[in-house]
Amino acid sequence: MEIKDLRVNGARLRSTLEEMATIGATPAGGVQRLALSDEDRRARDLFVRWLKELDLEITIDAMGNIFGRRSGRNDDLPPVMSGSHVDSQPKGGRFDGILGVMGALEALRTLHENHVETERPIVIVDWTNEEGSRFAPAMVSSGVWAGALDIEWAYARADIDGKRLGDELERIGYKGDAPAKHNPLHAYYEYHIEQGPMLERQVKTIGAPKGILCLHWYDVYLEGEANQVGPTPMEGRHDALCAAAEMILKVNALPEKMGGNMVATVGEIQNGPNSRNIIPDKVHFTVDIRSWDDDLALRAWDDVKADFLAIAERRGCPIQIEETWRVNHSPFDEKLVQRVLETADELGYPALHMVSGAGHDASYTNHVCPTAMIFVPSIGGRSHVEVENTTWEDCEAGANVLLHCLLKSANEG
Amino acid sequence: MEIKDLRVNGARLRSTLEEMATIGATPAGGVQRLALSDEDRRARDLFVRWLKELDLEITIDAMGNIFGRRSGRNDDLPPVMSGSHVDSQPKGGRFDGILGVMGALEALRTLHENHVETERPIVIVDWTNEEGSRFAPAMVSSGVWAGALDIEWAYARADIDGKRLGDELERIGYKGDAPAKHNPLHAYYEYHIEQGPMLERQVKTIGAPKGILCLHWYDVYLEGEANQVGPTPMEGRHDALCAAAEMILKVNALPEKMGGNMVATVGEIQNGPNSRNIIPDKVHFTVDIRSWDDDLALRAWDDVKADFLAIAERRGCPIQIEETWRVNHSPFDEKLVQRVLETADELGYPALHMVSGAGHDASYTNHVCPTAMIFVPSIGGRSHVEVENTTWEDCEAGANVLLHCLLKSANEG
Repeated sequence: MEIKDLRVNGARLRSTLEEMATIGATPAGGVQRLALSDEDRRARDLFVRWLKELDLEITIDAMGNIFGRRSGRNDDLPPVMSGSHVDSQPKGGRFDGILGVMGALEALRTLHENHVETERPIVIVDWTNEEGSRFAPAMVSSGVWAGALDIEWAYARADIDGKRLGDELERIGYKGDAPAKHNPLHAYYEYHIEQGPMLERQVKTIGAPKGILCLHWYDVYLEGEANQVGPTPMEGRHDALCAAAEMILKVNALPEKMGGNMVATVGEIQNGPNSRNIIPDKVHFTVDIRSWDDDLALRAWDDVKADFLAIAERRGCPIQIEETWRVNHSPFDEKLVQRVLETADELGYPALHMVSGAGHDASYTNHVCPTAMIFVPSIGGRSHVEVENTTWEDCEAGANVLLHCLLKSANEG
Repeated sequence: MEIKDLRVNGARLRSTLEEMATIGATPAGGVQRLALSDEDRRARDLFVRWLKELDLEITIDAMGNIFGRRSGRNDDLPPVMSGSHVDSQPKGGRFDGILGVMGALEALRTLHENHVETERPIVIVDWTNEEGSRFAPAMVSSGVWAGALDIEWAYARADIDGKRLGDELERIGYKGDAPAKHNPLHAYYEYHIEQGPMLERQVKTIGAPKGILCLHWYDVYLEGEANQVGPTPMEGRHDALCAAAEMILKVNALPEKMGGNMVATVGEIQNGPNSRNIIPDKVHFTVDIRSWDDDLALRAWDDVKADFLAIAERRGCPIQIEETWRVNHSPFDEKLVQRVLETADELGYPALHMVSGAGHDASYTNHVCPTAMIFVPSIGGRSHVEVENTTWEDCEAGANVLLHCLLKSANEG
C-alpha cells in the first residue's frame, strides 16, 4: 500500500473514544474529568497503557504533561508533535480535548500496524489542566512548558477547596522527573472539535484555523444604594442592577456597532444583596471581547467603556473597572495551515479556512514552534456541555487529516 | 397636669433603644437579631423584664407573640393595642420594628409613672418574625393571629439550615400556651420608621399612611443556549442574560410609562452557568410591583408581561413566569388615620398624609380591627441596612403622637 492511501481505523477510534468516555461519565451523556482528579488519573493510566502497547518512549514532565515518542529514521532531527488534553469541564462533553489525544493515538496506531517509518520522530502529548476549570488559568501546563509561565506559580494554583495543583499532581502520581521545558520541535498539530457552528453552517468537514482570536477580559464593579423597594420612589434611586442591565446590552450590541470579526459577551454576574425587596447596591459582571483584529478589540473596549462611564454617571452608581487579561491574536504557521487545507482536499473532505475563537494549548506551542490546528464540526455548535457531539465519520475524517499532516511534516528533511 | 400636656421621656426612650441595640449589635452600627435566634431570645427576655416592671399582665401565645396588658377602668371593653417587632433583618438597622415596641413601652411607662388611668385596657405587643428574613414569609405570626394563616403551616416554615420555626420557638422558650388568635380590639396603632425618603424630602416629622400599597411578586425563568463564547458568532446566539437585561430595564421604566403612584423593581437575579466564557443559558429574576391602585398594578403587569414575551420570542429564549404573590392594597381606618394627623398637629409636629410602600404587621391587624400607623423620618430614606438612622428628636415625637392616640382611643366609651 502506498503511504498516500493509508487511513486510520474509524471503528477503533470510536471504541477508544467510547472507552475513555466511561471515565467520569455523567448521567446526561457527558463527562466530568476535572484536572488531577481521580478520573483524570484513571484516564491518564489508560492512556499510558495504550502508549506502551505501541512501544513508545514515555516521558512525564514536572507539570504532569505526558509525552509518547515514536522514533524516526533520524532521531537527531526535531520531532513532530500532536496532542491535546484528557481533562474536561465540569459536566463537559465527550469530545473536547480527548478527541485530539485519541486522534493522535489512532494515527500512531495506524503507523504502527502498517510498519510505517518516518524520517523524524513523532511525539504524542497529553497536556495537564487545559480547561482551567478546577485550577485557573487554562492551558497552564503548556504555558509552563513553553516558558511563558513560572512552574512554582503554576504549582501554587489552588482549587475551590484550597488544594494546590502541585500537591494534586503528586497525589495522583503524575509529577514527573523530566523538566517541563520545550525542546526543539519541527511542527505541532492539534486536532480538536470546533466548539462553534461555522463548519456545520457552511457544510464543511475540516476546519483549518489561521490562528486564535485575541482575548480581552474585563471585570466591572458597580455600587448602588440599597433600600427597601416599597417606600423608595423611582426618582432618586441608584439601582446598580439597572445600570448593569444597560451595560450588558451595550456589550451585546458592540460587535454589530464596531463591524468586523468580533464577539463580545457578559457571561458572569453577581448581584447584591440579591433580595427581591431591596434595591441592588453591589453588582459585578465580566466582559469578554474577542477578535482577530487586536486594535478593533481595543477600540471596541474604549467605545463601550465610555458608555459604561456615562451610564454609571447618569444612574449615580460609582463604577470600578479592572482590565483583567489581554492576549493578542495568535496567527498559526501559514505553511502548516495550508497543509491542513491541502491534505483535507487530497482526502476529499470539504475544508474551511477560519479562525479559532477559543484558546487551546496550541496557543502556547505557537510561541515555540510552527503550529496548526485541525477542526471538525460540533453538532449545533455546542461545547462545554454534556450534549456536545460530533459524528463518528467526522472524528475519523479529522484523524485522517492529522495522520497525513503528521506524515508530511515527519518526512521533511 | 392635664392629660393633654402629658409627654413621653425622650431621654429614657433613647437609652431603652440604645440598650436594645446592644443585643445583636454589628460592628458597622446595625443589629442582627434574626427571628428566634439567641439574640431574639435575649431581646424578648429584656422586653418581658421591662413589662413586668410596669405590672402588666403578660401573655405569650402559640406563635410566640408577646402581649402585655394594662388594665382599664372597664376591662370588659375591647382594648387598644400597639406594638411592632423586635426581630431584625440580617445586618439590619437599630430602628426598624424595635422603635414601635419601645415607643409603645415608653407610652405605657409615661402612663404608669403619671398614674394615668384609661377607660379601656391598653395592650403592648411584640410580633414574632415580622421580617421573614430567617423564616419566609414576613409577618407570619400576626397573620396566624389574624386568622389569615394556618399555624401548622407557620410552624413548618424552615430556615436555610432546615430548622423549623415551631422547633426554634420551643428552643428559645417562647412557644406560649395562649391560642394565637385575635380577641376583639378597639384599635391598633403601629409606630414605625418610614423606611423611605418622603418625610425627609417634604420636611415633615410625622407620617400618617392612609394604608399599605398592593404588592405583586413575580418570578421569571429564562432559558438560553450555553456555548463557548469565543467560537460562537453573535448571530444565532440565545443569550438568556441579555434577554433578562432588556426585561429588567422594562420593569425599571414601567412606573413612568404607566403614570400614577407605583414602584417596580428587580431585586434578585441568578445567572447560569455564570462562567465568563460561556453564554448564559439559565436566568431567574424577580419582579416586585407596588401601587395604591390594584388595577394599575395589574395593568402594569399585563403591559410588562407582553414586553417579556416579545423579548423572549425575539431572542429565542423560552420564558416561564410565575405569579408568586399578590396582596391588594390595604386602606387603614380613616378615622384613626385622621386621629394621627390631628394629634401630630396638636403636638406641633408637621405631618404628612401618605402611603406605606412596605408591609407591616398592621396589614394583618387591619383585617380584624381599626388600624393606623405612625411614621417618623428615615435619614436618607435608608432602611434594612446598618446605617439606618432616625434622630432621637423624631423618635420622641413619634412616641408622643402614639401616646396621645392611645389615650384618645382608650378613653372612647
